[in-house]
Amino acid sequence: MKNIVIVANVKVKDEFKDEVYNELLKLHKATHKHDEGCIQYDLHKNLEDENSFTFVETWQNAKLLDEHMKKEHFLKFAQFVDGKLESMDIQKLEKVEA
Amino acid sequence: MKNIVIVANVKVKDEFKDEVYNELLKLHKATHKHDEGCIQYDLHKNLEDENSFTFVETWQNAKLLDEHMKKEHFLKFAQFVDGKLESMDIQKLEKVEA
Repeated sequence: MKNIVIVANVKVKDEFKDEVYNELLKLHKATHKHDEGCIQYDLHKNLEDENSFTFVETWQNAKLLDEHMKKEHFLKFAQFVDGKLESMDIQKLEKVEA
Repeated sequence: MKNIVIVANVKVKDEFKDEVYNELLKLHKATHKHDEGCIQYDLHKNLEDENSFTFVETWQNAKLLDEHMKKEHFLKFAQFVDGKLESMDIQKLEKVEA
């Protein structure tokens, strides 16, 4: 099974930017600490939109990615940001070995 | 100066998918070969949309990224895909050292 690369973009409503950013940092920390199969979980600021943040992730396989998304720290994050985002889009990718 | 991370999404018009994919592979190869400051230049297929491709890139700084985008192999790619894409969006990011 090949690694799965995830690019997840989060655009936050202006009034919630700081509190959501803090939750992103918590999610980042908990994922690194607890989640098996997490090869990469990098949080980024968007240099052209201060309300947008992007995770670039690499997971060993789809099963371990699914487990991550059922973990308490992920579900808590999802619940916290409900209603506080302009948009969230998640791309599931596979690296081309060129 | 901090590294710059680029996520570039390309959605190709169905009829041009194979030929654009070949040009993406050429761009990938030439960039790795010629472009100073290129720390990462990974091409990905989208697992949920066979006409979409994503570059995840890391550049030493903005100046070297700009030089990349003025190189012949990049300009040739840009010219080739003109009119053959549904969309292209480029995100300029900075990794959060959390």
